[in-house]
Amino acid sequence: MNTPALVLDLDMLERNIAAMAAFARAHGIALRPHAKTHKCPDIARRQIAAGALGNCCAKLGEAEALAEAGIGGLLITSPVVSSQGIERLMALLARSSDLMVTADHPVNVDALARGAAGAGLTLAVVVDIDPGMHRTGAATPEAVLALARQIAAAPFLRFAGVQFYCGRHQHIESYAQRKTEIAERTAYLKGIVESLAAAGLKPGIITGGGTGTHAIDAELGVFTELQVGSYVFMDHQYNVCDLRGEGRVPFEQALQIDARVVSAGTSGMATIDSGLKSMATEAGPPPVLAGAPEGTSFRFAGDEHARLTFPDGAAGLGIDSVVTLVPPHCDPTVNLYDAYHVVKGHTLVDIWPIAARGRSR
Amino acid sequence: MNTPALVLDLDMLERNIAAMAAFARAHGIALRPHAKTHKCPDIARRQIAAGALGNCCAKLGEAEALAEAGIGGLLITSPVVSSQGIERLMALLARSSDLMVTADHPVNVDALARGAAGAGLTLAVVVDIDPGMHRTGAATPEAVLALARQIAAAPFLRFAGVQFYCGRHQHIESYAQRKTEIAERTAYLKGIVESLAAAGLKPGIITGGGTGTHAIDAELGVFTELQVGSYVFMDHQYNVCDLRGEGRVPFEQALQIDARVVSAGTSGMATIDSGLKSMATEAGPPPVLAGAPEGTSFRFAGDEHARLTFPDGAAGLGIDSVVTLVPPHCDPTVNLYDAYHVVKGHTLVDIWPIAARGRSR
Repeated sequence: MNTPALVLDLDMLERNIAAMAAFARAHGIALRPHAKTHKCPDIARRQIAAGALGNCCAKLGEAEALAEAGIGGLLITSPVVSSQGIERLMALLARSSDLMVTADHPVNVDALARGAAGAGLTLAVVVDIDPGMHRTGAATPEAVLALARQIAAAPFLRFAGVQFYCGRHQHIESYAQRKTEIAERTAYLKGIVESLAAAGLKPGIITGGGTGTHAIDAELGVFTELQVGSYVFMDHQYNVCDLRGEGRVPFEQALQIDARVVSAGTSGMATIDSGLKSMATEAGPPPVLAGAPEGTSFRFAGDEHARLTFPDGAAGLGIDSVVTLVPPHCDPTVNLYDAYHVVKGHTLVDIWPIAARGRSR
Repeated sequence: MNTPALVLDLDMLERNIAAMAAFARAHGIALRPHAKTHKCPDIARRQIAAGALGNCCAKLGEAEALAEAGIGGLLITSPVVSSQGIERLMALLARSSDLMVTADHPVNVDALARGAAGAGLTLAVVVDIDPGMHRTGAATPEAVLALARQIAAAPFLRFAGVQFYCGRHQHIESYAQRKTEIAERTAYLKGIVESLAAAGLKPGIITGGGTGTHAIDAELGVFTELQVGSYVFMDHQYNVCDLRGEGRVPFEQALQIDARVVSAGTSGMATIDSGLKSMATEAGPPPVLAGAPEGTSFRFAGDEHARLTFPDGAAGLGIDSVVTLVPPHCDPTVNLYDAYHVVKGHTLVDIWPIAARGRSR
């Protein structure tokens, strides 16, 4: 294979999808997995075939890319606020009638209401609730209630439910600590849900959660559906977390990067063809999984290269040797590639386009 | 405009290209600007129209993308070592007869010689010299001489010259310090060039340098051509360097990212639609250039968002407000977009495809 290549182990992927689907069934909770991880209709289809309601999308562009490939049940999890964006949203709604979008601001709800009325289409809107991250979401229970009322009162909008995504909590390493904090946040969410119900605005869907908290979320039983994403690939960040309180990780690292030694002029080190342009860098260097001596270290060396340093006394690698790396953070790494190289064992069985790569608008 | 958008100021770009071209002419040195910065045939054409010999390319895939768009005079600045890569290289050479590639290892030179003989084509090879970075390049003067002899002796290879790229030195902030270190490294290069000439292997081209050292390189007079890249855009990293020893930066920051406020629920802050997927992150957060109060700070908030925090007492920004950011490191940022939105003042005048985006193979 030409390198750097984003290699996806099909058996591991299918086991990950089946394991999360079985977990959700066993706990009576639905899944709407987040496409921000995979950006790929082929994977969305497998998730839906395993029982998922559809996919979440981080941006309108991601939803457009999935809808073009025939994926339904889409929820856009961040606000669409510009006039151009709302125009595109209505064009998408015309083709994908079960599309939902989140909103967290009365000005945005007004704009959505005008857009939907102009298009003569009914748009389902989910009120996003800020869990304290201050990224998106209505800041107070009163603000949530006011937004729900505003949506319910708009002729071409439908109040579909609420979203509550505790992003920071996903990566708390200790299960017990994660559980304590999520229980506290979920009590806050539950209070809002109850006050909405008391006002005659019982949320149809209560969506949120992620791979890091899915077991806790299912146990607490407030969400109707989970937005799990990373479980399909299990990146290095999540792999260090205890996801089920049982000390083991129920998912496998299905995604890897194959890179190649292109220079080996200095003893004790080698340069590979994978750098800042082939891996997200904000989560640290990738672990070296295979192809290099135990204890080999990795250091970025510019856009296109990285340096491997071998432990003392280890044999080095000659040029054209292939090494396998684990992406430190899958989502933005996937965004750097046009396709997955899908393998079964060591055999390339398919190439899947990453249709929503770069669709950040 | 839909956001996030990569916005290129055409007047600034053209002034930057003209300024570097004028500098090179005045100093009797040629330019082969590095396409790893822009990845764009439209910009390559403007550089060549201003007198450049062609473009450097970081990888074979980048060269393929530029050649497809009709750009000639291409030099691939890192080794192509795999059998598939060498096959593609020969296919490219068949269409682009003035293509050159670097090599730093006798095994690679053998493979290139076999590939060229198999294709019945003559390939120009530049010996890459390690300046001490240990990224790529032959490690010693003896290794350089041996490679040059090996290339000269291969029937279908042509020894075209040497490459010497001091990457680390480009970013040394003090001009005097940069000059001292580059002078020392250039003395090393000069010794190698002299020993090649003494062996009857005078290098036709001596290529290297970058935006950070171009003035020093021109003054030292050893290079025949410079691989300047970042001057076309002037990212934030270079903007803090004194490039000509005169305390001012002779190039303008032509590249910006437009982003949009999508959430503003908490006073004193706002969330914009530009995160890890729309900016390289390894060089720190982007300065906020316009659209927000003086003193606004930026923090990444996931793949698709960032948080702006306003200084005490400043008025915040409402949703749908547009802010302008300066990419901290242009090259990998450009790699996240499919196109430049080219503006003159505030008017969109063109959209240029980033044809070599993602072409890391």
